[in-house]
Amino acid sequence: MLTLNSHPSGRHFLQIPGPTNVPDRVLRAIDQATIDHRGPEFGELGKAVLTGIKQVFQTESPVVIFPASGTGAWEAALVNTLSPGDRVLMVETGHFASLWRKLAGRLGLDVDCIEGDWRRPVDAGVIGARLADDAQHRIKAVCVVHNETSTGVTSDIAAVRAAIDQAGHPALLMVDTISSLGSIDYRHDEWGVDVTVAGSQKGLMLPPGLSFNAVGPRALAAAETARLPRSYWDWREMLGPNAKGYFPYTPSTNLLYGLHEALAMLAAEGLPQVFARHERHARATRLAVAGWGLELLSLDAAAHSPALTAVLMPDGHSADALRKVILDRFDMSLGQGLGKLSDRIFRIGHLGHFNDLTLCGTLAGVEMGLAAAGVPHRSGGLQAAMEYLTRAPERVAG
Amino acid sequence: MLTLNSHPSGRHFLQIPGPTNVPDRVLRAIDQATIDHRGPEFGELGKAVLTGIKQVFQTESPVVIFPASGTGAWEAALVNTLSPGDRVLMVETGHFASLWRKLAGRLGLDVDCIEGDWRRPVDAGVIGARLADDAQHRIKAVCVVHNETSTGVTSDIAAVRAAIDQAGHPALLMVDTISSLGSIDYRHDEWGVDVTVAGSQKGLMLPPGLSFNAVGPRALAAAETARLPRSYWDWREMLGPNAKGYFPYTPSTNLLYGLHEALAMLAAEGLPQVFARHERHARATRLAVAGWGLELLSLDAAAHSPALTAVLMPDGHSADALRKVILDRFDMSLGQGLGKLSDRIFRIGHLGHFNDLTLCGTLAGVEMGLAAAGVPHRSGGLQAAMEYLTRAPERVAG
Amino acid sequence: MLTLNSHPSGRHFLQIPGPTNVPDRVLRAIDQATIDHRGPEFGELGKAVLTGIKQVFQTESPVVIFPASGTGAWEAALVNTLSPGDRVLMVETGHFASLWRKLAGRLGLDVDCIEGDWRRPVDAGVIGARLADDAQHRIKAVCVVHNETSTGVTSDIAAVRAAIDQAGHPALLMVDTISSLGSIDYRHDEWGVDVTVAGSQKGLMLPPGLSFNAVGPRALAAAETARLPRSYWDWREMLGPNAKGYFPYTPSTNLLYGLHEALAMLAAEGLPQVFARHERHARATRLAVAGWGLELLSLDAAAHSPALTAVLMPDGHSADALRKVILDRFDMSLGQGLGKLSDRIFRIGHLGHFNDLTLCGTLAGVEMGLAAAGVPHRSGGLQAAMEYLTRAPERVAG
Amino acid sequence: MLTLNSHPSGRHFLQIPGPTNVPDRVLRAIDQATIDHRGPEFGELGKAVLTGIKQVFQTESPVVIFPASGTGAWEAALVNTLSPGDRVLMVETGHFASLWRKLAGRLGLDVDCIEGDWRRPVDAGVIGARLADDAQHRIKAVCVVHNETSTGVTSDIAAVRAAIDQAGHPALLMVDTISSLGSIDYRHDEWGVDVTVAGSQKGLMLPPGLSFNAVGPRALAAAETARLPRSYWDWREMLGPNAKGYFPYTPSTNLLYGLHEALAMLAAEGLPQVFARHERHARATRLAVAGWGLELLSLDAAAHSPALTAVLMPDGHSADALRKVILDRFDMSLGQGLGKLSDRIFRIGHLGHFNDLTLCGTLAGVEMGLAAAGVPHRSGGLQAAMEYLTRAPERVAG
Repeated sequence: MLTLNSHPSGRHFLQIPGPTNVPDRVLRAIDQATIDHRGPEFGELGKAVLTGIKQVFQTESPVVIFPASGTGAWEAALVNTLSPGDRVLMVETGHFASLWRKLAGRLGLDVDCIEGDWRRPVDAGVIGARLADDAQHRIKAVCVVHNETSTGVTSDIAAVRAAIDQAGHPALLMVDTISSLGSIDYRHDEWGVDVTVAGSQKGLMLPPGLSFNAVGPRALAAAETARLPRSYWDWREMLGPNAKGYFPYTPSTNLLYGLHEALAMLAAEGLPQVFARHERHARATRLAVAGWGLELLSLDAAAHSPALTAVLMPDGHSADALRKVILDRFDMSLGQGLGKLSDRIFRIGHLGHFNDLTLCGTLAGVEMGLAAAGVPHRSGGLQAAMEYLTRAPERVAG
Repeated sequence: MLTLNSHPSGRHFLQIPGPTNVPDRVLRAIDQATIDHRGPEFGELGKAVLTGIKQVFQTESPVVIFPASGTGAWEAALVNTLSPGDRVLMVETGHFASLWRKLAGRLGLDVDCIEGDWRRPVDAGVIGARLADDAQHRIKAVCVVHNETSTGVTSDIAAVRAAIDQAGHPALLMVDTISSLGSIDYRHDEWGVDVTVAGSQKGLMLPPGLSFNAVGPRALAAAETARLPRSYWDWREMLGPNAKGYFPYTPSTNLLYGLHEALAMLAAEGLPQVFARHERHARATRLAVAGWGLELLSLDAAAHSPALTAVLMPDGHSADALRKVILDRFDMSLGQGLGKLSDRIFRIGHLGHFNDLTLCGTLAGVEMGLAAAGVPHRSGGLQAAMEYLTRAPERVAG
Repeated sequence: MLTLNSHPSGRHFLQIPGPTNVPDRVLRAIDQATIDHRGPEFGELGKAVLTGIKQVFQTESPVVIFPASGTGAWEAALVNTLSPGDRVLMVETGHFASLWRKLAGRLGLDVDCIEGDWRRPVDAGVIGARLADDAQHRIKAVCVVHNETSTGVTSDIAAVRAAIDQAGHPALLMVDTISSLGSIDYRHDEWGVDVTVAGSQKGLMLPPGLSFNAVGPRALAAAETARLPRSYWDWREMLGPNAKGYFPYTPSTNLLYGLHEALAMLAAEGLPQVFARHERHARATRLAVAGWGLELLSLDAAAHSPALTAVLMPDGHSADALRKVILDRFDMSLGQGLGKLSDRIFRIGHLGHFNDLTLCGTLAGVEMGLAAAGVPHRSGGLQAAMEYLTRAPERVAG
Repeated sequence: MLTLNSHPSGRHFLQIPGPTNVPDRVLRAIDQATIDHRGPEFGELGKAVLTGIKQVFQTESPVVIFPASGTGAWEAALVNTLSPGDRVLMVETGHFASLWRKLAGRLGLDVDCIEGDWRRPVDAGVIGARLADDAQHRIKAVCVVHNETSTGVTSDIAAVRAAIDQAGHPALLMVDTISSLGSIDYRHDEWGVDVTVAGSQKGLMLPPGLSFNAVGPRALAAAETARLPRSYWDWREMLGPNAKGYFPYTPSTNLLYGLHEALAMLAAEGLPQVFARHERHARATRLAVAGWGLELLSLDAAAHSPALTAVLMPDGHSADALRKVILDRFDMSLGQGLGKLSDRIFRIGHLGHFNDLTLCGTLAGVEMGLAAAGVPHRSGGLQAAMEYLTRAPERVAG
């Protein structure tokens, strides 16, 4: 057998902002024997996960599960609701927003993009203004990323909804929650989102390989007239068999076992506690960054991500060199800078199956790595984080 | 944890023609911790599987691995090579050929379909004739299923290639090997196939969730001009990062662990022995069917599938009732009749991780089920299979 | 990783009479992270298994769990209750009874042994007679094997109890249930057994490594005065910490996880159904043996074991040669003849996590092996077993 | 399934000085199907582990593997070599030395014990003096603990050997390495040890359930005349079958799979590096303790254990209260004070499958726990450890 994680000793620290550390319970669930996806046992499994996943999206609408990466769910959101040449309004919050935009372009959509500096969240006012200008309603969809994984900036989706409503514009609202679902409070129904896009490998604590579309009623209606060609991603094919727990083509049986287990874990901890835990770890991480005298990429305090923290390197220092030192000496993987942030930032993932001591180990790895790599900084970052963790209650009031 | 396979006692017999019984070695490989898909360890894994998988396709061309079901790989084959309105020639060998045809239609292709009775293989002569009639070369691709999972009929791909060549027609040849790859001798290069479509959950002995396109040079050239919109499935995006073992979006890390292990198992057994084993078990199964006095769905002896055997029910008897008796009393899943064969046949999968005694248990389950369900038959089918298994050499000459 | 079960393809048939096939659920349970054996979670686990195991012994007395093989539990039964030079009455039902006798001798006990031909169960009358002759009550314990794993003969423990009572003799009754517990109806309390010895790797469906003493009140009293030196095996050290779910020395944590899961599986199936299932498979196996025209080792129909069946080879034929053919060609392990039965019998295990189709595969392997090895026999044995399995109800009335 | 480690989120920190954190590779190895312990595959496994384990003991003598806890291996060492009433010289280095002494007494040995304050290592000079006084050689064995798990004090075994030799005394030297083997340099042959006792659940990175006796030639000779009753523990029964990789009674098959994997991991890292890693982590831990202004239990700097560190609580503060805060708030298990140290110390395990960042998380948990529990201390302990870890080379020169 290929021996992965074949480091000299001890457990690898996987502190990229996803894929996250998969709990043993989930790995063991995935390790069960594959069953007949058309048999009665599978139907029970299918119904359980298709029902259970709704609670994580905080929706009563159907959630479609694809055997695919998150990128597939991006594509699915667009091809199910839009027609060739349709205009979509996108907001360039970072690398992943850029990738989604590029994908939309390749599908033949006409992308109107609000540029950004990758350090701030979506400006709902700008969206509202664009929509107000679009008297003919040529814009068919507004696509935003809830938590930009490449920057550690979280946007206010309720504000985007309000801006659309205020503009009286019929565009669909599509939201990428790939790195927020199950980590940051997200409310598909309450916030009036039409399509929510998510993946398995972040807050859902699964390996990559499943992705999701939560589909509101207006999106479902749009699917009736959308003319982009589609088959694999077609929601309509899914919803019929899903009603009895089945899928129109072979589903990823073993990852669904894992999803069942992960949903049980999230339910046991309770979503409010899950969100509070992520907030707490993010705050501790930012205190460490401040302690080191380093700069956060995120400029807007209200938009700092609970799921990950992106840290700017001092001028003249390579983030990738630092990450290599940390990987080689301390056996920890950190997220790299992507796109135009390449080599300028490193990203600390603190989402998913995670706790205080693993966070402390993570921050220790960064602090020792900064020293080992000769990056100018103050020590004491971890100390500040520990003081906060000791002081702050570890659980929300029940 | 959801307890699957929660039958009273003993191991479930999963004898549908896929997903097949996943070996413990593969399940345990999948159960390893997820790693950074952008880190150096992943690159090693990626290179190993991207190289190793070529041998199973018997090709030196690249093989693209999608985090998706086989249905996705069907779609990928078409969208990478064709443009809206392009004509494709398909052959209706059974339910899955029909589904592929339907998918092609939904993508906006113009499907010319050679009808069939679902009991015989592809007739290469008919294909040749259609191509000869197509003087203007409006047909851009010929799509055939190597082993039709819904019927247990295997077609002669080399003959199809010869027919295309004889017609001097430039159409691409695309072949679905979803239920043959790793079970039935298949030669992408030697047979001049342009795109081969495959999935993980049959002869490759993995859970579902990965699918494949082996891409020959003419297909790669076609991708440069093809105009069907595509992004997730785009080969060109894949091939760049694949060269170093990486993927353009998050791959299904843990299933790739399993693929690495499955490739090692196939290599250890040796493909010629793997194919001979499947032939041997198929022959034993057909002897059992004959012993029971039942009729094979497959009418052409040269086309009987080494991977599965479809059995016609006597008139007036329900295949689904029989399958239910067998599932309830003997804890075995058999394949159902699909599409127009619904309730008229049952399918015995004898592919993947399998051996003589599991086959005997399988055939015993069918024979006892026939009796328990009151289906007219002769006993002694398993006896005939056992006599053959005892007599026939269990290994190919080395 | 060492790759075990590295056979060309398919699952190995482990049909020795123990260790038995461990269910995936149990293996996965064992695969959980080891915890602090002095922490609160362990206490919960400990209490659960120490309570749950009593039901399998059908006792309300304490059951002591050793991190040891069954051989250790034999030793524990003796050293806890007896003093150097004490006389014990043992019955030589087969190889394992002989080993227990040998062990007793090595511990310095004075063994009075009732010889046997290894083909018949314990004769309670002979025991009664010996005890009646022992007017001075020099015999301190009667030790019998409930199900002799080396011969497939099951003895009537209630009859032994009755014979002791009728003789008015105070000797303790100690019973080895290593290959019967969880497979054959066994009633520690109702049958008045003082010490029951068991192991994990048979009907309890675990890997080897745990063993058990169910300890009745008279045995507990005897422990107060017994003078054989003991420490590791000392019940008194165990019972104190056991009350809170803990152990006096480090227990075999991960096997206890497995025990917890196995107890849940036995409870879900229900002991009456478990026993009926074993009876049913044993009967089917004997019909197969009769069908082959071979002779059972067990001579007394009332004593045929529900857990395994020992089959005599025709004169001049080697059981070990047959077993080798079956292992090499059909990837099945059968039990060998032990001690004086070496090479003269083979033993078919049909206990533990088992079902009809695995039994049919097993019997097919024997039948094909007999043919392949040139052992004179009639075919049709499996056929007879299948007819019985089809006819006989598969479940006890609920 | 019982869900263990069912903490709200993240991985439990198991930082007791054993059982240690079992690597996933080892857990997965244990999770393989149980095989026939009398079949050819098992023989291969048996030979591999019986050979490989010798290197960890640094011996060419046989190593006997028991399906038992370490306590069993203590018993085995004594019963194989001694006779009733034999005098043994033991040294009370701590709780476990006391337990071994108690065990010896219960077996009927005459224990001469050198008392100790539980804060210092074995004084070889005192042993030498006692032996010199024993002109009649009534002392048959000297029993010492290499690394006292209850105190974190390591003794100099070579010095003990020298003292025995200098006294010209024929007593056997028996050494408990339960918490040192595979963590601290230990040389059975070079140091002239006669019997070494070890267990699976510490430096060998396995769950508990296996234990070991490395048996030198003088011990083997002693076994010929020793008269303590024994059977389960009898080396002589073991060594015959061991030669071909087999065992005289059912071995703990699945833990042996794990042992095979653990030996491969130790060999890959290399024993010198394994020992250096433990030294490094121990030093970092002591720097943390000093940084907190707390007192080590170990008084002799040369004897500080590389495997664990015991820390004295400030007067008037409860170690168990601290441990409970740490468990409840930070999900970490620390070792408790045992015997007379109950509630006065806590023990930090830093042995087995371990690395820098897990150590930092561990020390962070202690530091935050001290604050949360209101234990007087200085902050900055972890900071000191991190400075050391950053500075010190992480690998021995190769």
